[in-house]
Amino acid sequence: MQLTGKNYIAGETSAEGSEVFYSVDPRSKATGDLPFCSATQAEVDRAVDAAVAAFAELRNYSSNRIADFMDEIAARIDGIGDKLLHTADRETGLGLPRLTGERERTTGQIRAFASLLREGDYLRAIINSEGPGQPSVRQMQFPVGPVAIFAASNFPFAFAVPGGDTASAIAAGCPIVVKAHPGHPATSELFAIAISAAVEAQGFPAGMFSMVQGAGIDVGQWLVANDGIEAVGFTGSLRGGRAIYDAAAARPRPIPVYAEMGSVNPVLITQAALANRGDELANGLVGSITLGTGQFCTNPGLILLQNSPASQEFIASVTAKMNAAPEGVLLNAAIEQGLQSAVSQTRDNPNISILTGGEAVADSDFFCFRNTVMQTTASAIRADDALQVEHFGPVTLFVLCEDQDDLRETVNALEGNLTSTVHAEEDDLESIGDLLHQLREKAGRVIWNGFPTGVAVIPAMQHGGPYPATTAPSTTSVGMNAIYRFMRPIAFQNVPDALLPDPLKDENPLGITRLVDGVNTDGAL
Amino acid sequence: MQLTGKNYIAGETSAEGSEVFYSVDPRSKATGDLPFCSATQAEVDRAVDAAVAAFAELRNYSSNRIADFMDEIAARIDGIGDKLLHTADRETGLGLPRLTGERERTTGQIRAFASLLREGDYLRAIINSEGPGQPSVRQMQFPVGPVAIFAASNFPFAFAVPGGDTASAIAAGCPIVVKAHPGHPATSELFAIAISAAVEAQGFPAGMFSMVQGAGIDVGQWLVANDGIEAVGFTGSLRGGRAIYDAAAARPRPIPVYAEMGSVNPVLITQAALANRGDELANGLVGSITLGTGQFCTNPGLILLQNSPASQEFIASVTAKMNAAPEGVLLNAAIEQGLQSAVSQTRDNPNISILTGGEAVADSDFFCFRNTVMQTTASAIRADDALQVEHFGPVTLFVLCEDQDDLRETVNALEGNLTSTVHAEEDDLESIGDLLHQLREKAGRVIWNGFPTGVAVIPAMQHGGPYPATTAPSTTSVGMNAIYRFMRPIAFQNVPDALLPDPLKDENPLGITRLVDGVNTDGAL
Repeated sequence: MQLTGKNYIAGETSAEGSEVFYSVDPRSKATGDLPFCSATQAEVDRAVDAAVAAFAELRNYSSNRIADFMDEIAARIDGIGDKLLHTADRETGLGLPRLTGERERTTGQIRAFASLLREGDYLRAIINSEGPGQPSVRQMQFPVGPVAIFAASNFPFAFAVPGGDTASAIAAGCPIVVKAHPGHPATSELFAIAISAAVEAQGFPAGMFSMVQGAGIDVGQWLVANDGIEAVGFTGSLRGGRAIYDAAAARPRPIPVYAEMGSVNPVLITQAALANRGDELANGLVGSITLGTGQFCTNPGLILLQNSPASQEFIASVTAKMNAAPEGVLLNAAIEQGLQSAVSQTRDNPNISILTGGEAVADSDFFCFRNTVMQTTASAIRADDALQVEHFGPVTLFVLCEDQDDLRETVNALEGNLTSTVHAEEDDLESIGDLLHQLREKAGRVIWNGFPTGVAVIPAMQHGGPYPATTAPSTTSVGMNAIYRFMRPIAFQNVPDALLPDPLKDENPLGITRLVDGVNTDGAL
Repeated sequence: MQLTGKNYIAGETSAEGSEVFYSVDPRSKATGDLPFCSATQAEVDRAVDAAVAAFAELRNYSSNRIADFMDEIAARIDGIGDKLLHTADRETGLGLPRLTGERERTTGQIRAFASLLREGDYLRAIINSEGPGQPSVRQMQFPVGPVAIFAASNFPFAFAVPGGDTASAIAAGCPIVVKAHPGHPATSELFAIAISAAVEAQGFPAGMFSMVQGAGIDVGQWLVANDGIEAVGFTGSLRGGRAIYDAAAARPRPIPVYAEMGSVNPVLITQAALANRGDELANGLVGSITLGTGQFCTNPGLILLQNSPASQEFIASVTAKMNAAPEGVLLNAAIEQGLQSAVSQTRDNPNISILTGGEAVADSDFFCFRNTVMQTTASAIRADDALQVEHFGPVTLFVLCEDQDDLRETVNALEGNLTSTVHAEEDDLESIGDLLHQLREKAGRVIWNGFPTGVAVIPAMQHGGPYPATTAPSTTSVGMNAIYRFMRPIAFQNVPDALLPDPLKDENPLGITRLVDGVNTDGAL
């Protein structure tokens, strides 16, 4: 697998632009040798045109055919071998153990969607027979068409070129154009080579997959503005996601944007929990805050405590542990600068105290921000929404509440989050219920006595939440239900059996579960 | 039930504004006596504040409690008696038979949602047990919060104050603020009285329901801009829907808008169908075009034919029948003016021929536009998207294609629609498949040998489609799945049974179907 630094447009490499950028090793800040070429608007448009052409063919493919293609992608990712891990490690500094696990998760996710397709029930077929004054109507889910996907920097596999958005969009039956993240262009190209080869090997139309590189925002804007794109998947910052959302909404023909934009993930800890397992909590919290150098969208960034000597002792303990924890490598210069800027703005607020850290490490060999603990009051948080900004890195903010009312009001004032967490004891069960369900309104996932980092890829998982966590709270970007972001129902009224798609035919040739006149059955009509 | 002309804000009548407007009888153009008072921004904000307060209580109500409330609403609508029909008939000119049917559909829909709630499976509960390296995670659907609903003019019951958006939002568990349509303010107030009484009788929080009147666009804009609103349901024009969509997308915290904005509903008729049943088709088509004076969002506004003597004969026959059909009453002056304006712009295109009609009837006692048939070519349609505009009234446009390629290209160039229809014969089955599935990409519902007007309220129905038909192609505004527009999944990780909502508790006290570790079961864990 020879890297070229080029874009992958429907199976062809292309480098027509003059803007280039380079991989940077975050551990040494050293720049790589290979220039990566940002796509031009013409290249972006060619990728979308090819995707539109591919969809005209793809929309009639069976689920099984797409499943075979997905298995081929997973096998070809495995086939890249350790070069993938080393390339990604050099571009992200995330370390081989983490990347090894992330690779397994990524191919596992792709194969799980292939299984979902073979099983077939995901099509949600509904059949109503003809009756008095009622036509025969049958509906199922269909792909929406070409999808634009924006890769994230912090998961170079699982939320990037071959990640959850890609897996769910392909599983839905949609051609994709991926905007690679400029933080790991070489890793991205390895995936582009693997997926392009899978396209060819399985005889899929070449426009099924394109990947465009881009150092700035132009490439993404061209992509979203192209009328051939029907939906957008995005994982990244609030600023980036909102810009994409605004561009899509401003199109003559607006399209949905499924943007996951991070979160402060409030954690509420009761006094009883502090008393029973304060040390364990301090260790767990520091582990969660510093995991992956804090570069998780589920990083616990806001800790709610009732003011007390025990709480102050707990904060002091977390602060000491954060201070003692080794400083981790940040992904890239942009993350370091973004974090510096966000923390600077926060600490400008006179109600914020910095307990440790608070700034980048200027003379470090690697991209680095000091492990940071800040503290403020509940009333200060309520008075200034800007204090709910995500600090993307090893940073957390303690919020001291004076009493239960102060706590309740503060929870009520929280913005949307991916997760909210409660640490409490048996004795708290009666008193904590209301707060837990108030926290439910602020998030997509509520965690009890755990930490928000770590998102299991299982059917019951919900990775989403009210804005600004996402732009589409009723969807998830992790788990099998992610497929429905890229599908829509179409109903057929009195259409002859010969013209119906297989999943809706009388004889149910695929043997899938269908809701027939109110009853779930996998039999023929 | 004494009408007041006032707004209904959380159970209280209110008329603080100075702008008033009046009911107009479309059959006589006569203005009613009772002034209706447009809401002020303060009244709108009060309604939303009350909805937010109501939600804090409502979000913990059981499905059964909401079902009882919905049955009470339906009973109270029945309780209005014939006054409802006569009031609506005076305000819309739709006639008592149609309104009688529409009332039945409306209360039927509300009761169907009540049944859905009692049955409980709609919550889509998913449970994954704790396993090695995997937490216990349980998710279900929850209401999103206060919903703003914009009533349509053309269905004063089924898509208005007590209509499908209201029924599905309340069923989801959301408080609602309805913007009544100024075309039928008295009818709207009758519903507001009935629903407000149901709120009180069932002991629901007063903010559960508010209804604001408004002659212009301000009231709706204030409503959508209010940060307390979490989602919007809208049925109406493209211009109105897009304005609401844009306002919601421009909020600091954007929210989803589910706007159904009408459609031209292309109908493709094969030569074989014309030969076998040309007369039947002409009668059926004229009936569908003039049904409800053409004021249906599923009105067949674009008829695709291959150019031939038989097609020309068919067009002449439809034209003669349209010319002979009695002119119907339009809903109001705005509809008449809007139709006049849309048809004028279309006929300005030099490739459009007017075969009959084409203008309003200036000296009519009632709001009226001549039954209109226009004709153009496939290449003209492809050259100018403006020819795909909806003419909301008894108007259709024939499009003559030269050959199969011309037809295919034209279908490909169609914008999004609610429906697309094919009329064909047995002999066409082999050749028509590709076109039918191309038409599928342009619509939410594909109809075979039928007419698009008439939307059965059944589970397999899909009433939606790609933009500009709607702003949310993956959702429906008719049928039980409409509820998911106003719900979102929330997952609970390791939360103790005592704190879980009933549908997720171990013992499954409601006996609902849950997907437990991959298996659907209605048993306990």
